[in-house]
Amino acid sequence: MPNQLNDSELQLLEAISGLTGTPDGAYNIRLNGQAQSRASTQNITIEKKTDGKDGIDIRIEPNTINEKVYIPVIMDESGHSEMVYNDFYIGENADVTIIAGCGINNCGSHDSQHDGIHTFYIGKNAKVKYVEKHFGEGGGTGSRIMNPTTVVNIAENGLMEMESTQIRGINSTKRITNARIDKNGTFIVKEKLLTHESQYAESDFEVNLDGENSSANVVSRAVAQDRSQQLFTAKIYGNNKCHGHSECDAIIMDDAHIAAVPEIRANNPEANLIHEAAIGKIAGEQLIKLMSLGLTEKEAEQHIIDGFLK
Amino acid sequence: MPNQLNDSELQLLEAISGLTGTPDGAYNIRLNGQAQSRASTQNITIEKKTDGKDGIDIRIEPNTINEKVYIPVIMDESGHSEMVYNDFYIGENADVTIIAGCGINNCGSHDSQHDGIHTFYIGKNAKVKYVEKHFGEGGGTGSRIMNPTTVVNIAENGLMEMESTQIRGINSTKRITNARIDKNGTFIVKEKLLTHESQYAESDFEVNLDGENSSANVVSRAVAQDRSQQLFTAKIYGNNKCHGHSECDAIIMDDAHIAAVPEIRANNPEANLIHEAAIGKIAGEQLIKLMSLGLTEKEAEQHIIDGFLK
Repeated sequence: MPNQLNDSELQLLEAISGLTGTPDGAYNIRLNGQAQSRASTQNITIEKKTDGKDGIDIRIEPNTINEKVYIPVIMDESGHSEMVYNDFYIGENADVTIIAGCGINNCGSHDSQHDGIHTFYIGKNAKVKYVEKHFGEGGGTGSRIMNPTTVVNIAENGLMEMESTQIRGINSTKRITNARIDKNGTFIVKEKLLTHESQYAESDFEVNLDGENSSANVVSRAVAQDRSQQLFTAKIYGNNKCHGHSECDAIIMDDAHIAAVPEIRANNPEANLIHEAAIGKIAGEQLIKLMSLGLTEKEAEQHIIDGFLK
Repeated sequence: MPNQLNDSELQLLEAISGLTGTPDGAYNIRLNGQAQSRASTQNITIEKKTDGKDGIDIRIEPNTINEKVYIPVIMDESGHSEMVYNDFYIGENADVTIIAGCGINNCGSHDSQHDGIHTFYIGKNAKVKYVEKHFGEGGGTGSRIMNPTTVVNIAENGLMEMESTQIRGINSTKRITNARIDKNGTFIVKEKLLTHESQYAESDFEVNLDGENSSANVVSRAVAQDRSQQLFTAKIYGNNKCHGHSECDAIIMDDAHIAAVPEIRANNPEANLIHEAAIGKIAGEQLIKLMSLGLTEKEAEQHIIDGFLK
């Protein structure tokens, strides 16, 4: 149970999942490579993988409506490194919310690294909201590294809405998302990324709009501070009559570097594809206006960033 | 003199340069690899290269205002293949228009190919309008191939406006444009591309905004018909306080394929960069409206394409 975690672990859990007690629904809390606690429900089964790989299988019965699954990962053992495979089988007509996320507290001198491959099989007419927050903290010299890969298969009429947020404190991340959308399927992504100090973040989307009337909307908002570097790539392939849109808006500050390389490729004349990207600094007028209301420059900047990433 | 050209060559000349007689200004008309005619003026010197390379040097005196240079290339000898180097030295404070372009009439069974590398050195405060049209025709089985490379160096306060148009009839083209812009310099590109049958077109821009307050605006409009394929890439690198914008709008028809891969990279926090791209077919409502006015579907499509590429 989460209440067996220590105070710092509880804080980390809350930061990445919003949890302040035992989750309401199915859950698996992973602590330093072990299942700290786990619970299934009538409609949602969580089981340790039996194929030798580290990870869990999450099976959601058809027609499961309005249920939640929590699968947060916490690491506070400096030097721990793991590669985890989680597979999600979402039954037809289900409508569920899955809250993942990873928090690393590294106070030591060794790197802590979490690599996760999450694979979704979303059944016909099923809807999934997938929320993933990444956060790092701790005053050690060891790095906090997270490389999440998300593989998404959406069957006919299925929908996935993915909210992916990297709050602060991740030294290096390579985020890969590959999606394949069938007929009338929908894939929506809202990504938020903040990097600071000398952090590096790479976010790479590839979306295949395979089915007739499939659609995708990938929106990324990024802030790069200090000497941090970011690379955003999004490939949208229109292989049928479809709608695809990708957008990357980025605020650049200090000595940061940002690059955006979206790609749209129409392999079908009925494919309708759009992308847009903008990189720029905070507008001077916005800062001056807030400073004239009594905020310091730093406070005004923070206010604008909070609004941008909200 | 152009009036020594045959009728079909005169038609080709007019299609790519608008010329119907001897040009008003400096000119060099190239026919099947030879200078068919050439003229310099007081301020504009055109000379054959003396370094062993095939091509010409065009030198424009400082303060040359409102003058034109015509350097069209015509090829109607099937199987002719050439690699031409033309260098343009534009003096400070000049304000000139340069009309290039290449027309290939290939009635034979051998491929005709024109590769040209045009390098511009644009002096301080100088303005250049550069117009380049590419066109192919002829019922032979040999291909018409054009690979224009444009290298642009813009000095402080300089400006180049480049209008690049591929009308019809080019089987294969790889168009490369590399630009480097100094302080307060401006680079404007308007590209229009139409491909049909099984043609292939690739357009690749790389713009380095090196100088303070430099700016670039690259706008490409493309139509891909039949089984033709197009790839558009535009890299805008913001290396200083600068403004960069790239845009690719494409109409896809029949069994064509189009991909757009723009890249913006902010290497300076004062870089302000935007790109946008859209690929889609002609809207059904537009067609229906024009057809209700008495046009056939083909006529309505042509009307919309003409407007789009105008």
